[in-house]
Amino acid sequence: MLRFGVLGAGRIGKMHAANLAAASTARLVAVADAIPEAAEAVAEATNAKAQSADEVIANPEVDAVLIASPTDTHADFIEQAVRAGKAVLCEKPVDLSSDRIAQCLEVVDAAGQPLMIAFNRRFDPNFAELKRRLDDGVVGDLETVTIVSRDPAPPSISYVERSGGLYRDMMIHDFDLARFFLGEEPVEVHAIGSVLVEPAIGEAGDVDTAMVMLRTASGKLCQISCSRRATYGYDQRVELHGAGGMLRAGNVLESTVEVATGTGFSFDPTLNFFIERYTDAYRLEIDAFVDAVESGKPPSPSGYDGLMAQRLADAASTARETGQPVRLD
Amino acid sequence: MLRFGVLGAGRIGKMHAANLAAASTARLVAVADAIPEAAEAVAEATNAKAQSADEVIANPEVDAVLIASPTDTHADFIEQAVRAGKAVLCEKPVDLSSDRIAQCLEVVDAAGQPLMIAFNRRFDPNFAELKRRLDDGVVGDLETVTIVSRDPAPPSISYVERSGGLYRDMMIHDFDLARFFLGEEPVEVHAIGSVLVEPAIGEAGDVDTAMVMLRTASGKLCQISCSRRATYGYDQRVELHGAGGMLRAGNVLESTVEVATGTGFSFDPTLNFFIERYTDAYRLEIDAFVDAVESGKPPSPSGYDGLMAQRLADAASTARETGQPVRLD
Amino acid sequence: MLRFGVLGAGRIGKMHAANLAAASTARLVAVADAIPEAAEAVAEATNAKAQSADEVIANPEVDAVLIASPTDTHADFIEQAVRAGKAVLCEKPVDLSSDRIAQCLEVVDAAGQPLMIAFNRRFDPNFAELKRRLDDGVVGDLETVTIVSRDPAPPSISYVERSGGLYRDMMIHDFDLARFFLGEEPVEVHAIGSVLVEPAIGEAGDVDTAMVMLRTASGKLCQISCSRRATYGYDQRVELHGAGGMLRAGNVLESTVEVATGTGFSFDPTLNFFIERYTDAYRLEIDAFVDAVESGKPPSPSGYDGLMAQRLADAASTARETGQPVRLD
Amino acid sequence: MLRFGVLGAGRIGKMHAANLAAASTARLVAVADAIPEAAEAVAEATNAKAQSADEVIANPEVDAVLIASPTDTHADFIEQAVRAGKAVLCEKPVDLSSDRIAQCLEVVDAAGQPLMIAFNRRFDPNFAELKRRLDDGVVGDLETVTIVSRDPAPPSISYVERSGGLYRDMMIHDFDLARFFLGEEPVEVHAIGSVLVEPAIGEAGDVDTAMVMLRTASGKLCQISCSRRATYGYDQRVELHGAGGMLRAGNVLESTVEVATGTGFSFDPTLNFFIERYTDAYRLEIDAFVDAVESGKPPSPSGYDGLMAQRLADAASTARETGQPVRLD
Repeated sequence: MLRFGVLGAGRIGKMHAANLAAASTARLVAVADAIPEAAEAVAEATNAKAQSADEVIANPEVDAVLIASPTDTHADFIEQAVRAGKAVLCEKPVDLSSDRIAQCLEVVDAAGQPLMIAFNRRFDPNFAELKRRLDDGVVGDLETVTIVSRDPAPPSISYVERSGGLYRDMMIHDFDLARFFLGEEPVEVHAIGSVLVEPAIGEAGDVDTAMVMLRTASGKLCQISCSRRATYGYDQRVELHGAGGMLRAGNVLESTVEVATGTGFSFDPTLNFFIERYTDAYRLEIDAFVDAVESGKPPSPSGYDGLMAQRLADAASTARETGQPVRLD
Repeated sequence: MLRFGVLGAGRIGKMHAANLAAASTARLVAVADAIPEAAEAVAEATNAKAQSADEVIANPEVDAVLIASPTDTHADFIEQAVRAGKAVLCEKPVDLSSDRIAQCLEVVDAAGQPLMIAFNRRFDPNFAELKRRLDDGVVGDLETVTIVSRDPAPPSISYVERSGGLYRDMMIHDFDLARFFLGEEPVEVHAIGSVLVEPAIGEAGDVDTAMVMLRTASGKLCQISCSRRATYGYDQRVELHGAGGMLRAGNVLESTVEVATGTGFSFDPTLNFFIERYTDAYRLEIDAFVDAVESGKPPSPSGYDGLMAQRLADAASTARETGQPVRLD
Repeated sequence: MLRFGVLGAGRIGKMHAANLAAASTARLVAVADAIPEAAEAVAEATNAKAQSADEVIANPEVDAVLIASPTDTHADFIEQAVRAGKAVLCEKPVDLSSDRIAQCLEVVDAAGQPLMIAFNRRFDPNFAELKRRLDDGVVGDLETVTIVSRDPAPPSISYVERSGGLYRDMMIHDFDLARFFLGEEPVEVHAIGSVLVEPAIGEAGDVDTAMVMLRTASGKLCQISCSRRATYGYDQRVELHGAGGMLRAGNVLESTVEVATGTGFSFDPTLNFFIERYTDAYRLEIDAFVDAVESGKPPSPSGYDGLMAQRLADAASTARETGQPVRLD
Repeated sequence: MLRFGVLGAGRIGKMHAANLAAASTARLVAVADAIPEAAEAVAEATNAKAQSADEVIANPEVDAVLIASPTDTHADFIEQAVRAGKAVLCEKPVDLSSDRIAQCLEVVDAAGQPLMIAFNRRFDPNFAELKRRLDDGVVGDLETVTIVSRDPAPPSISYVERSGGLYRDMMIHDFDLARFFLGEEPVEVHAIGSVLVEPAIGEAGDVDTAMVMLRTASGKLCQISCSRRATYGYDQRVELHGAGGMLRAGNVLESTVEVATGTGFSFDPTLNFFIERYTDAYRLEIDAFVDAVESGKPPSPSGYDGLMAQRLADAASTARETGQPVRLD
């Protein structure tokens, strides 16, 4: 039974708090938020305490800190928590600057505390099963990875402006999945992008439609396609092609209902909201973190995974801006 | 190279004539129809001769007669053709009266000529593959058969009036498929039916929506569901459940195109016209007939298969009318 | 916030207790079981009290009693609870005897307390959505209902012996769904059945493979197919055909993973365990009960629904045994 | 009724000859091949004449020449045929050199004869329907195109050596489809490739696994993925994403048979042979050519389409070799 403090009581923090309250392996002790009322509401619903972030991190009844506060606080909270001897589960990204991430990871290493980065998609039962099958050799040696990732609608411009751009904010999940499946580091990044959804995104210096190609040292190829719009719901697909065949994991529809009329057969849209789409993933992510901390195994995805995904996002941003591929070492 | 004469140059006869002209194992020699112009048009398009039915049957260049004329001429033409030493491929049914069929089969037996009944669905690549998998033991011992059969729209009332009723006209295909898959004879027939599509069908003494349950001596169970209406196209499905699993063969859609929009994912209707849906079946049926005649193997489905399907249709008609199940020996 | 007492801490009771503990609209107060240790374990995990059944029913802090004890205690507990002024949510069936159910419903009526029967499948998001679309007129007037229901494996013989038989134990769910979708009462029941899965089931006087046909007064037709075995998982499907098209709701697979190799494309089996398959249904069932009790609307499915499903099961049992259809008024 | 001469009686020429013999709008007059016996066999089967290529082109009974001879003869035969006043339907590519194609197109222009390039996939009913829906605005303005193209197995090394490389030999079909769907010219080509299937392909200077990204002037993005291997059959998919949704056209499976067992649900592989996969496309391609010639409309895909696809293949080959994107004007 691992005892948690949660930093951040917004949409994601609240969801994590509920999962911790329900988990048989975890107990929620305390919640903090910059808006005290938000922390109190969550605390009341889950029978936990509302405290300040400093109090949560210092709380001797807290074994592990789950960080779901705004991005620009992540690295500082991680450092403060590991120095206080806490295990940390931190929402992605650690920081928008790879250098700051690298610096933070040194502090984590020095403290010797476990840190896991919440790349939730690795824990989605579909993608996790895909990885198991791949590792089981069901399709032999992997040759190509294809990832499609489309959000139902673009975020607000104010969000876009402080997001670090599509590659760092949205495609970073796909970079993490690419590394997860490729099993080796990409050494070459090609990127193209356009503003087709929302002109204001272009005015903010970002793109809303983007494609990337990656190549690993051994010659595996990967392509990623992202869009800030998809009328039919949240679209998240992975296709792996290997010497022995193909593996795919697709979307989850709202129901299994099928309608046949004069215009043909129709099915529901995909689940439209990421918290609903990844309900199981968020729950299983906590199980994996608790398991790692309690067993002493290194948590995965690690801080290093967070750093490497960020470096790919940096490379893709540069490649898109310069029109030239970026090589990585 | 088997040489054919075709009796009947209507919709089905024309289609068979084109298939014979294209088949590498068959040659179309002559065509007859009660309307001479119809026969002539088909003959011209296929480089064959237009003759009277008597001439076709007597034609020494004709090895085999394909009968696609109106139902009430089938039994007579079969008898005339086998007496003239021809092999016969006859559209279903041989006759609306089981007694007349039995009598006709005696003539065929006496003549020693091969007779095949054109239950085309057995040759559909999907249903044929289903049977192969069943016989290969893919799902172990068969336990239940479920057949769904829906026409896009009801036929004309004048057709309904001389059709013998839904069980003899439409469900007879499903009775044949049921026997094909069950591999043993049903001994018990339960039937219910309603008039839900077209009141005039009820006024003609028939039903347009019908269900049947069959039981074989060894206890295998079968259910059949028919409707004279399906807005989404021709609907023809078979599901086999056995000790080791389930086998299904489904519909064929107009294309593989899929559309995803705000209302979800949609696919094309099923192929809407039986000649289009069973294009391959009609072609493969002729191959099977030619192969049987040339190799001397008994053709399948046989005249006996035609008789037994008719007897099930008779039993179902009675069961529906009396509200009591009918036992067969 | 409705306060619950749960009777029964077995597999189903435990699951309901966890759902009550997690629900934002319900609070779990007390749990009883014939085996006190079972009640205590559940109470501890959910922060509730372990009490005797009598204590739970008498507990002034309990507003509603959820009955998940053995079938032969249901009717008595219902009567005791409504007399104590509690609302009741009772697992199906109320009793194996329709007469006993009718008698119990009179007590409920006299007490004026709400009673809901836990036909969980009506709350499955897929079947519930199917009903909504039907009611919205998406396929026009309903003509036929087809229900397939297969369990992964037969229960123990000792269970079979006290189950009331396949029609009362297993197909009762399908009878309830049939009534749910048909929207009117069946007046005619045809049934056939066989022992194909487990000879000992036949020795116990029951069948393990069964089909039923129903007809309503207005002529709607329904067919149900049940098997005590399905190697590919729990198989639960409903197909509705109407004047304007077809509606279907299918199975839920273990994941969306698809594998393509030389033998073709393959997908996961269906969810194999009913508690897993109907996770959402059990949760939504409690929401619906709480909503009915708090709003004063009559709960649905009602005690009457429980009685009518039982009467269909009785009729089907008789029809199968006598080989003759049973008419209902 | 357009009268055809066919040059080339190999696998593709034979198939075209059979389609011409069966088409109601075309007549096959003469066939030529470098191996006279090959031409004679086809002529006999189709009731046509075997002639030399020169005789076919000079034959006054021939209105149109279908060129299915080896690639290095295409440009010369096109020039000879149009100078002889024939309409021409030529298998792709016109030539491996874009300059030679441009030169040949000048001769065609000067002769004023219609020339159609046989990019058969445009006529596949699935891809053609995809284009119709796109043009109908079903998904609004197009944003991205994703094409997957995998052959069941690599060709012989001797074929690879004279093929012009994967981009010119295999991906050229995908470049044509990309242009077909994008509706505007790509201005930027990024390419990566690897040797993962067959080392000898690498020794021949080619790749067997390749990805490309294209960008048009207006910012539409396209990605293409090719592999010389797919264990599950011929894999040909197109996905179009637009402001209003997504359109996809997928593979065609060998049958609709589905098997459910303890390991899950399985379906057939895709049609494994391109002539079988594109049966309808080859037939419809001839209909379109005949229609264009007889109506005087410019044939599509045109010689210019052939040239532009080749230029994209040239650009991709260069981009892959240099590691730098290629800009086109």
